[in-house]
Amino acid sequence: MSDRSHSATAPAGFHGITGNIGIKDDAPDFFTVISEVPATVSAVFTKSRFAGPSVVISRETARRGTGRGIVVTARNANVATGDQGLVNAREIRAAVAGLATAEPEDILIASTGVIGRQLPMDRVREFLDGLQPPFPPADFAACAQAMMTTDTHPKHVAARCGEATIVGIAKGVGMIEPNMATMLAYFFTDARIAQADLDALFRRVVDRTFNALSIDTDTSTSDTAAILANGLAGDVDLAEFEAALHDLALQLVRMIAADGEGATKTIVVRVTEARDERQAKRVAKAIVNSPLVKTAVHGADPNWGRVAMAIGKCDDETDIDPERVRIDFGDVTTYPIPEEDVLDAAAEHMSGDEVTITASLGTGDAAFTVYGCDLTDGYIRINADYTT
Amino acid sequence: MSDRSHSATAPAGFHGITGNIGIKDDAPDFFTVISEVPATVSAVFTKSRFAGPSVVISRETARRGTGRGIVVTARNANVATGDQGLVNAREIRAAVAGLATAEPEDILIASTGVIGRQLPMDRVREFLDGLQPPFPPADFAACAQAMMTTDTHPKHVAARCGEATIVGIAKGVGMIEPNMATMLAYFFTDARIAQADLDALFRRVVDRTFNALSIDTDTSTSDTAAILANGLAGDVDLAEFEAALHDLALQLVRMIAADGEGATKTIVVRVTEARDERQAKRVAKAIVNSPLVKTAVHGADPNWGRVAMAIGKCDDETDIDPERVRIDFGDVTTYPIPEEDVLDAAAEHMSGDEVTITASLGTGDAAFTVYGCDLTDGYIRINADYTT
Repeated sequence: MSDRSHSATAPAGFHGITGNIGIKDDAPDFFTVISEVPATVSAVFTKSRFAGPSVVISRETARRGTGRGIVVTARNANVATGDQGLVNAREIRAAVAGLATAEPEDILIASTGVIGRQLPMDRVREFLDGLQPPFPPADFAACAQAMMTTDTHPKHVAARCGEATIVGIAKGVGMIEPNMATMLAYFFTDARIAQADLDALFRRVVDRTFNALSIDTDTSTSDTAAILANGLAGDVDLAEFEAALHDLALQLVRMIAADGEGATKTIVVRVTEARDERQAKRVAKAIVNSPLVKTAVHGADPNWGRVAMAIGKCDDETDIDPERVRIDFGDVTTYPIPEEDVLDAAAEHMSGDEVTITASLGTGDAAFTVYGCDLTDGYIRINADYTT
Repeated sequence: MSDRSHSATAPAGFHGITGNIGIKDDAPDFFTVISEVPATVSAVFTKSRFAGPSVVISRETARRGTGRGIVVTARNANVATGDQGLVNAREIRAAVAGLATAEPEDILIASTGVIGRQLPMDRVREFLDGLQPPFPPADFAACAQAMMTTDTHPKHVAARCGEATIVGIAKGVGMIEPNMATMLAYFFTDARIAQADLDALFRRVVDRTFNALSIDTDTSTSDTAAILANGLAGDVDLAEFEAALHDLALQLVRMIAADGEGATKTIVVRVTEARDERQAKRVAKAIVNSPLVKTAVHGADPNWGRVAMAIGKCDDETDIDPERVRIDFGDVTTYPIPEEDVLDAAAEHMSGDEVTITASLGTGDAAFTVYGCDLTDGYIRINADYTT
């Protein structure tokens, strides 16, 4: 194709379109991004036993390790919709593959929104029938917008790596405790990377970013994170690429945490001096997921007793000795209880937009950091009033 | 002693006193109950790694299997208070033992309230020095009142079993996901039961009552459940006693769930047709603890998709097949999706004070029931504003 855009914000050779297929209202609820050449693909999905048909059939693309593009519909998760839901997902994927002159298995598909309702296929079919390739260069900001549900703003990042560009988009504000990946996160790059290398580095990045994020301990049925590398910008330094990708993924994770349903503050929990990463991650998750810690953060209350409680409830971590634990808010150590009163200084740190809690376990040298948000009236209102 | 009260609401031979030792304000914050003869004791405690000194030294009494009484202080948990906290707990226990002409190890001690503050020992000492035995027959309703923290009302139950009486008292509204027991729950009976029998039946009862309760997934550092049987009413039928005790424990569990911080509804989750009890309990806890299920119940919204999500996130239960799962609200089956629209009927059930969710897994014949409450603005307000 003639239009090979290449800039700091868009990798070469990705074309696409966004639009409204009328799933709920007239806001954008559809996008597709197609690479003009076959791309190397790595993708990870929810482990939920109720994984939707979009996840089921996208696993075919992930297994091949190569593909041409993705299609996403928002406002309806197409989950727990039985055989009809599977038929509908296959129909949408096939239609997009036809537009891209590709095989159905070349296309990743995802759906996000309410569970248990069939897609309005009459409207979806009419919309897809009206699409006319070739498509313009992908507008990734518009794609990020088109997959929002209760997100309050789109999540879109980009970086350069040598001659290549990496762009990432994500959505997700509730039902967020990714197990293999987050709700929906996509990366596109024109770097040339062998599939095995891409897969290995992508999984390492996901483990320390999306899999370290929790808004409400609820694991979505639709979680997907994927990267498409079409090679048009040539080779890159793999370590540099992984570092750039990690940085972008972490930017998206912080955006998701900050936009958590009802959230007013981001919480970063670092567990240090742990026996191993597994112990560090487990304790960090116990802290960041504790409703009592989350509400204390909301109240800007340096209630380190609740952090101690959350550490304590990891009861099979029998090497944790309260006498060797240290708890900091920001850089203020609150436990062991210092001589002078430091709670005002700790409360000062907690009045900001991002609260860092560090728990040092004294059982070894490992560390892990997780990301979350406070628990507020807003979360209750959004989820008590959300209509089935 | 001459006063051997014996009625439908008080077992024989338990004496005691309640009062205010000025831990926080002038509301009752202290009680002790002493049996005039040695009682058989069974007790279970939190597994928290941050278990407080009261728990640590009460384990000595539990190991002996015999004791004379209990002492409880409220409004301060005496947790994460180091060596001084241990010294203080021992001093209080020794003082009460002196009043009962017992050894310190004959007395169970518990403390509940804020974490990380030393007890005001000057006031405690002055109060204890002023106590004059003999004490009147224990007023269990007053004891239940004296151990309240953010509870909105005391929790006190009683039953007859043959010639014997069983009375139970409990407290707890937040930081409730008991691991071995609930926050504080005590039973007193004048039945005569061998310690091994009492221990076995008490643990069975606790496993299906207090250990099946979760308000906010946060495990307290002070959880204690104990029973004292002083034998003054003679032998009882053990099966009948266990049934009566189970019924009382379940009454207390429902009281605790209904009084959960900010709660407006009790949630009962029954998982049936499970592979085994472990699977049934795990899935039931995933449902009752899901913030999205809890907020849906708050909004009286029969959002069965969130129940499906909660089942789905038990991802290593690989024998769970969504095609064989059934989800009911009350007696209304919402999944698999029925032909006619039943959501209004399900919403009607959810408008009541107690919402029953049944998930049938189709993996076997086992079942387990757990108890919880909805998640509301009230929980946020109580816990965001609670002062350290």
